[in-house]
Amino acid sequence: MNAEIIAIGSELLTPFRQDTNSLFLTERLNELGVEVRFKTVVGDSLKDLAAVAQIAISRSDIVIFMGGLGPTEDDLTREAVAEALGIELRRDPDIVAALYKRFAARRFTMTDNNKRQADVLAGAEVLHNSNGSAPAQWLATRYQDGERLIMLLPGPPHELKPLFDAECLPRLKRAVPREYIAKRQLKVAMIGESALDARIAPIYTKFPEIQTTILAHAGEVQIHLQSRADSQEEAERRVSVLAEKLEEELEASVFASEGETLEQIVGYYLQMRGETLAIAESCTGGLLAQRITSVAGSSRYFLGGAVVYSNQLKTELAGVSPAIIQEHGAVSKAVALALAEGIRVRTNATLGVGVTGIAGPTGGTPEKPVGLVFIALTDGKLPEVLERRFPGDRERIRLWASMQALDMIRRRLI
Amino acid sequence: MNAEIIAIGSELLTPFRQDTNSLFLTERLNELGVEVRFKTVVGDSLKDLAAVAQIAISRSDIVIFMGGLGPTEDDLTREAVAEALGIELRRDPDIVAALYKRFAARRFTMTDNNKRQADVLAGAEVLHNSNGSAPAQWLATRYQDGERLIMLLPGPPHELKPLFDAECLPRLKRAVPREYIAKRQLKVAMIGESALDARIAPIYTKFPEIQTTILAHAGEVQIHLQSRADSQEEAERRVSVLAEKLEEELEASVFASEGETLEQIVGYYLQMRGETLAIAESCTGGLLAQRITSVAGSSRYFLGGAVVYSNQLKTELAGVSPAIIQEHGAVSKAVALALAEGIRVRTNATLGVGVTGIAGPTGGTPEKPVGLVFIALTDGKLPEVLERRFPGDRERIRLWASMQALDMIRRRLI
Repeated sequence: MNAEIIAIGSELLTPFRQDTNSLFLTERLNELGVEVRFKTVVGDSLKDLAAVAQIAISRSDIVIFMGGLGPTEDDLTREAVAEALGIELRRDPDIVAALYKRFAARRFTMTDNNKRQADVLAGAEVLHNSNGSAPAQWLATRYQDGERLIMLLPGPPHELKPLFDAECLPRLKRAVPREYIAKRQLKVAMIGESALDARIAPIYTKFPEIQTTILAHAGEVQIHLQSRADSQEEAERRVSVLAEKLEEELEASVFASEGETLEQIVGYYLQMRGETLAIAESCTGGLLAQRITSVAGSSRYFLGGAVVYSNQLKTELAGVSPAIIQEHGAVSKAVALALAEGIRVRTNATLGVGVTGIAGPTGGTPEKPVGLVFIALTDGKLPEVLERRFPGDRERIRLWASMQALDMIRRRLI
Repeated sequence: MNAEIIAIGSELLTPFRQDTNSLFLTERLNELGVEVRFKTVVGDSLKDLAAVAQIAISRSDIVIFMGGLGPTEDDLTREAVAEALGIELRRDPDIVAALYKRFAARRFTMTDNNKRQADVLAGAEVLHNSNGSAPAQWLATRYQDGERLIMLLPGPPHELKPLFDAECLPRLKRAVPREYIAKRQLKVAMIGESALDARIAPIYTKFPEIQTTILAHAGEVQIHLQSRADSQEEAERRVSVLAEKLEEELEASVFASEGETLEQIVGYYLQMRGETLAIAESCTGGLLAQRITSVAGSSRYFLGGAVVYSNQLKTELAGVSPAIIQEHGAVSKAVALALAEGIRVRTNATLGVGVTGIAGPTGGTPEKPVGLVFIALTDGKLPEVLERRFPGDRERIRLWASMQALDMIRRRLI
């Protein structure tokens, strides 16, 4: 079966906004063996939207509309799809009642335009939206030569994603002929995309039946593997053979094999080893702490940290002696090590990390250029420090530095 | 005039890849007064591609095809567009010669399939591609009811962008009736999209000639205004009138009128007022510091901060007395205030901020649910503290909390 995804909203036709929901939906659809054949973006015009709906319904088995389900005059998806299918909209009294209740709970008065959200395509099932007021709709119908599955989903990603997983996925699984797909997502830190490809291309090209995609993203490279077979067992077996060969080649550079983030992996090892972590960071300015604490439950192993931009704070919060800063400069191996050890001692953590560098765009010198970063890790007995020169702008340098620090913690723990 | 952008390539229909060229093209087209009405993504299938081309050419004045111009069997854009227009492809001997030359210069032998890159739509101009082997094409032609401008551009952004600017833009400027466009981008913090719209719709709907787009994004709402006129002066004047009326209505809620970020604005005010800032954050885990330090030059006003996940660190780094934590709990007004004042005193900053809350998903109680956040700000004389209950998941709660803290600093300084 094939699918078409339609993103609706004039803002998606500006230079500022881009549909990203379709990537999520494509992943879910591919897992069911459904291929996405077209993606379209159309604005909030009834004429344009109805035309796009008409074309999509005539050529694709599954058509997913995203957005345009809200209460305003610009929200025209219901009307356009009804027009394209030549069916009616019916106002659902249960939805109207639920809307009244939702507004009352927040002590708002509901204006009349909100009732438009209760208009349902004749024959469609209403799908509950836990994170927004506009319900979604699911319609299985005959159109010309065949069966069609049509979904009307809300546009905001935090509404669409949980709704799709809870309501659409089970229905799709029943409706779509079964195919078995197995996947792996290896992630590699601190190796460039082309250097990585040069090492692994001789391996994966020997497995043409496995779809291999290599993507560089924010300081890591992802290797996506996907295989299809007549049974889940066989699909898993095939993808495992290649994944193992790649892991053999790349050894400890592979930090995840199920798509986990580096901060999740670091958290996992810290918890497993019973270690606790504290950090003192300068040029990353809180980014490292933020990444570590983005993992739910990180309070079990992350004690906290200091963001020490000024020299005074390096001393005040992380106990770095002013003499060390004086002698070596704030951006130096010695200060990175002093930050790591200082924050470790101050917080009683088992591991301490220190980061200092020049993120730019200003502040570089010929000896200490923009991009120079020192990263130190210590457990009180065995301190280590790395010197790196990261390319790119402020944002990329900070990102690479945080990546390197996380990878350093990981390598200490594995 | 209106335009349609078509991105070609099966990789753009996977979960991993996304067309971004269209954002660049949209910006350029909008500046000429050309509106983008549709965007389509289609794979490397002659049938699908010809169908998409046919639809686009029948409904849009300007049709831009991106990708599918290479030498491989998958590169089918030339054939598909010729088929859709019902015209011929002619092999251009000059291009063939140039291809031979290019290969010879790199000491490669040219395989025959490369000659496909010399196939030109009858009547089209060939546009030189300085960064790749496939030349682009420009065709001005009559189709059914009107004139059409059709462009075939290479897919890789580093080929497409310079080529478009050098070759297509001058031709478009001659072909498109001259229009003058003025823009504003107001940004508003801590007001919901629908509440904002309810307040400003009565104003902007009185200016139908100005295109108003409202976008909610990561805790802020953006109001994009765009006006067109016969002179730049008139366009600017029109958009200014509406922008001023909106700013009057929204008063201090508007934090930027030229698209600046909240952290840039906060940095601007801190520097202008000669203030320095330090923060002690718990539930935001470094996110607030990271946002503040994402601005180049932030070291001039940001001294640093403490990420204090554990109670011990709240005391150790931010000087919060254990008795206050004992009495009120770590998530409380009193602790937020103590964090703000403690870090301010400890660092000698003129302003201190404290954030404590429950980002979830665990750790909530009936009295102190997930999403409860206290944010305090003090200059040593006038402390203030906000209690908020943010909706959503861990990531959103942290984002909203950081936004609220930034907005609180801004309001203190304006």
